[in-house]
Amino acid sequence: MSTEFRFAVNVTPKPGILDPQGRAVEGSLAHLGVEGVSAVRVGRRVELTVTAGNEGAARATVDRLAAELLSNPLIEAFRVELLSATSSTTSGGAGGR
Amino acid sequence: MSTEFRFAVNVTPKPGILDPQGRAVEGSLAHLGVEGVSAVRVGRRVELTVTAGNEGAARATVDRLAAELLSNPLIEAFRVELLSATSSTTSGGAGGR
Repeated sequence: MSTEFRFAVNVTPKPGILDPQGRAVEGSLAHLGVEGVSAVRVGRRVELTVTAGNEGAARATVDRLAAELLSNPLIEAFRVELLSATSSTTSGGAGGR
Repeated sequence: MSTEFRFAVNVTPKPGILDPQGRAVEGSLAHLGVEGVSAVRVGRRVELTVTAGNEGAARATVDRLAAELLSNPLIEAFRVELLSATSSTTSGGAGGR
């Protein structure tokens, strides 16, 4: 039996790293008449399904992907979030939405 | 007195919408020797600070920004997440990281 774990990986620019997208959003606020918004940082959110025997194994896979493929460790930080876990009796790899 | 609310807006491609970045990640998995990963979806995560008198007013601002500036409602869904709330006695707009 295996379990399908749905994870999110949140990738954000490290503090102090220039964030041109965040600045662009801040520059648009005045045009929209929005006040009181600051410190905008734009990153990525990657959601994925991992089929594994237990949560530890699934997390190890996600941590490796996040560090090696989904983020640039020089300028970005990432945080892994478990969204759901669904047990199944099949061993197929497809899942999620 | 005002409060600084730190929010995250998670923007993801709607189900059924083509996600080329997600497909690119899936295509890289074999090269990394990673198995059991599927249903990869790549979106954005925007973190921002809103200075407002109460949480309702802050959320209204974020909801408007998410719908009008941070997402394309035709092809993307968004979800707002409150990260923290910090009270202060000053009325300045800067905050967060």
